[in-house]
Amino acid sequence: MATTQHSETRGYAAGKDPLRKRLARIEGQVRGIAKMVDDDRYCIDILTQITAVQNAFDAVALQLLDDHVRHCVIGSSGETQTQRTDELMAAVGRLVKS
Amino acid sequence: MATTQHSETRGYAAGKDPLRKRLARIEGQVRGIAKMVDDDRYCIDILTQITAVQNAFDAVALQLLDDHVRHCVIGSSGETQTQRTDELMAAVGRLVKS
Amino acid sequence: MATTQHSETRGYAAGKDPLRKRLARIEGQVRGIAKMVDDDRYCIDILTQITAVQNAFDAVALQLLDDHVRHCVIGSSGETQTQRTDELMAAVGRLVKS
Amino acid sequence: MATTQHSETRGYAAGKDPLRKRLARIEGQVRGIAKMVDDDRYCIDILTQITAVQNAFDAVALQLLDDHVRHCVIGSSGETQTQRTDELMAAVGRLVKS
Repeated sequence: MATTQHSETRGYAAGKDPLRKRLARIEGQVRGIAKMVDDDRYCIDILTQITAVQNAFDAVALQLLDDHVRHCVIGSSGETQTQRTDELMAAVGRLVKS
Repeated sequence: MATTQHSETRGYAAGKDPLRKRLARIEGQVRGIAKMVDDDRYCIDILTQITAVQNAFDAVALQLLDDHVRHCVIGSSGETQTQRTDELMAAVGRLVKS
Repeated sequence: MATTQHSETRGYAAGKDPLRKRLARIEGQVRGIAKMVDDDRYCIDILTQITAVQNAFDAVALQLLDDHVRHCVIGSSGETQTQRTDELMAAVGRLVKS
Repeated sequence: MATTQHSETRGYAAGKDPLRKRLARIEGQVRGIAKMVDDDRYCIDILTQITAVQNAFDAVALQLLDDHVRHCVIGSSGETQTQRTDELMAAVGRLVKS
């Protein structure tokens, strides 16, 4: 099953370093939000930071989707391509609702 | 300005501990996503985790909005109430778009 | 129950005409999208129009929420205020997920 | 340019009838919302209907995206495929933000 084949090249392989950097920055932002709560900061300011993290996460998700389409979907054929397209559309559906 | 008055009681004061726990859990989830990238996990599985974090963040945001309405908006009056309602609606608008 | 009291003044009463105009415009946009399908227009162009209607609907929803907070929630007290705040937060939750 | 080639077969050609039916139903729902405003219905009930239409629109958009990927993207090659993938990702980005 695709989800357990860790050895194959992933769609995001070429952009792995920038992806890691973005996630590290998001992790820092989440820690910053926790600190805002500790410091009793105004609820609206905390909400503004949460929205910023949501947008940063959306950008990461769109990058992963882009890589998935260009490498995993377009770079395959037959049944594998159909399965990866199904997985793509399910992921888009979850993202639109998230 | 409300955003710099750190000494006053915040709308989320009563639920501060559960809020901190949820944010600590989200921070762990973000670290888990970074590890999935390190481990070359399948893009779609990473996207599923990102959606889970987005949903967890939505829940935190809705809780903060709830506290803000019940304490900061309803518990004030006059110009302060108008300002906090303006801030509430701006935050809802950003959240709907995030 | 609030949902069946049609005689009382609604939060959106003052802005009823602009609200009706916006909804009439949205109805026209939806008809336009149906015509694009009839005319076999490019899928991406149809999607762009759908996104435009979604954004127009978000604007209407945010206006209704704004009216609800300023009139129905702030303009009430006691148990009625609690109930309307509950309804507000449920509506925001559905909107964030839609 | 793709947007003006009305004669070619569209990705949604096979599902054109169900697509038209869904859009006709959405048009009826929008008219229903306008009538709710005319009848001074409770703001929260109107918001619930708006959310229902947004969800129905999301379903139409996801169907169009699905058709676009399976027919327009996968069924092309070279520069056309790259262009259609770019258009797909831009549409997904707009939808996630809408």
